[in-house]
Amino acid sequence: MKIGELGERALIKQIAALVAKTATSEMVGIGDDAAVTQVRPGSCLVTSKDMLVEGIHFLLPGITAKDLGYKSLAVNLSDIAAMGGVPRHAYVALALPQATESKFVLDFYVGLVALAQQFGVAVSGGDTVASPGPLVISITIQGEVQRESVFLRSGAKPGDLLCTTGPLGASATGLLLLQHHYSCDQELRDQAMQAHYRPLPRVDEALWLAEQDVVTAAMDLSDGLLQDLQGLCEASQCGALLYEQDVPIHAATTAIAPMHNLSPLTLALNGGEDYELLFTIPPECFAPLAQAYQERFLTPLSVVGKMSTEIGIKMVTKEGKWEKLEFTGYQHF
Amino acid sequence: MKIGELGERALIKQIAALVAKTATSEMVGIGDDAAVTQVRPGSCLVTSKDMLVEGIHFLLPGITAKDLGYKSLAVNLSDIAAMGGVPRHAYVALALPQATESKFVLDFYVGLVALAQQFGVAVSGGDTVASPGPLVISITIQGEVQRESVFLRSGAKPGDLLCTTGPLGASATGLLLLQHHYSCDQELRDQAMQAHYRPLPRVDEALWLAEQDVVTAAMDLSDGLLQDLQGLCEASQCGALLYEQDVPIHAATTAIAPMHNLSPLTLALNGGEDYELLFTIPPECFAPLAQAYQERFLTPLSVVGKMSTEIGIKMVTKEGKWEKLEFTGYQHF
Repeated sequence: MKIGELGERALIKQIAALVAKTATSEMVGIGDDAAVTQVRPGSCLVTSKDMLVEGIHFLLPGITAKDLGYKSLAVNLSDIAAMGGVPRHAYVALALPQATESKFVLDFYVGLVALAQQFGVAVSGGDTVASPGPLVISITIQGEVQRESVFLRSGAKPGDLLCTTGPLGASATGLLLLQHHYSCDQELRDQAMQAHYRPLPRVDEALWLAEQDVVTAAMDLSDGLLQDLQGLCEASQCGALLYEQDVPIHAATTAIAPMHNLSPLTLALNGGEDYELLFTIPPECFAPLAQAYQERFLTPLSVVGKMSTEIGIKMVTKEGKWEKLEFTGYQHF
Repeated sequence: MKIGELGERALIKQIAALVAKTATSEMVGIGDDAAVTQVRPGSCLVTSKDMLVEGIHFLLPGITAKDLGYKSLAVNLSDIAAMGGVPRHAYVALALPQATESKFVLDFYVGLVALAQQFGVAVSGGDTVASPGPLVISITIQGEVQRESVFLRSGAKPGDLLCTTGPLGASATGLLLLQHHYSCDQELRDQAMQAHYRPLPRVDEALWLAEQDVVTAAMDLSDGLLQDLQGLCEASQCGALLYEQDVPIHAATTAIAPMHNLSPLTLALNGGEDYELLFTIPPECFAPLAQAYQERFLTPLSVVGKMSTEIGIKMVTKEGKWEKLEFTGYQHF
């Protein structure tokens, strides 16, 4: 049934029933002019908002409604993780083309609600309107963070080690597999598709890292290591040195990139949408941190380089050469 | 210059410069993965989010960029007022067609920032992306409210008086004046256009009312008195009786509606976008409240009817007849 046949009120009622399955820490939720929630004494509020547009950030019917709902929330949860926060409340606004099937909208919420439940996030409000053009999604997520343990991009010092929470390139590899008919081991294909459609935001890892009190700067990897690292370097007013041999590359990327005449490293550095954490710590803190981390989480921490005084990003290649990496970065327009 | 020529980074830098003129109560603002803000001890957080789509909620070039920025924030401030909250932080997401002039985007922010300054609101974050279709705006606004003074739609009791903070119909009259060439007294025309393009959210009035501790239910008038009152009645599980002679109608509406073969009352009941407060109070509280209110604010309070036990909305006409008002309400799709 098209949303036009079902009608706005009936659709919102069905959405509200799905959303009721999420945590309900709000005191006033959907149905009033605004949601009323509480922040625990001593906590700060951490808020992120983004907008995803059909044809720019995702293609239909390339992505299923459930995956779209999941991923729309996941990328926002990743922003809260990047600040060391605990995600609490999500607000979802949708602009829907007239021809949208109501099942599509409800499946979107099924995917989103499943992830919200996994992280204890309450879907507390939003807006559902018509669009004469593409489907547009805007999610705002609020979390809590202790003031003293907020992760910023600006705290890295020359000499700090640069670390990631997992291998890079898998999401971009998933996109390649969607666009081309490359043959690939089924398990690697599944991992790449999972990374592309259902990235797991590193919320638990970030909270654990925040507790250890050794992280000097952090952000999430959404635009690719090179571009994001550039942001971290600018905020911290220092440079970075990457070691080619230490950049963790996902096995699917290693297998598929050459079929597309790309080096796996290129995809790992520029692919984007990895949603791993990128963070810096003083070198003497790494060994005990990495060991404790590995006892707790499946994927080990990787050191990919270190921060330097010299502005700019350089790489030491496997052959021991130095390369200056110039990156202009993706711009929306 | 088109945004494509200016580039995303240059545009965001210019937006950030404008936004820096707003209150800066955030501890971490634009530039990190999320904004970090603080809620005063004892306060609750009140959050509203909406989405405005070109061709659905506004027409270009019908509305100027500055007015669009102003109005986009105003309608959100009105939601916070409707809850009795103090607005604190705004997050602005824009999906921009490639052909958008950068001046348009900056003027949008000039209009928005001016209103944010007026109400002490900090523009603390957001997202700026490309749109292959219409311009889409999503604003999230966060405010603070004391738990005991939150306005809800659900507290009205039969016998309570139903009040508004101002005359109705002016915004819809402004829209009529835009669409047709009706001759009209210049001052009335200006008032109607002002009401349509630059409604003043009743934030100060709502906070004052919240302090008086007599309001039993409240909301803002965005969809028209009849539809909004229906929402208040449903939430409060009672009905309402309107007195035709007491519904305050804006002078511009009285002058213009007949030229369009509409009764002024119809525009006042169904016009929408008035952004006045609709609230209920016990009858014995009205006289002292109205007097104190009038000493403080320019526009007096109006009693438009009273809440009743019988479900549904009825009206006593000027001729003393009873009419049952059926209203199906605007649906987005």
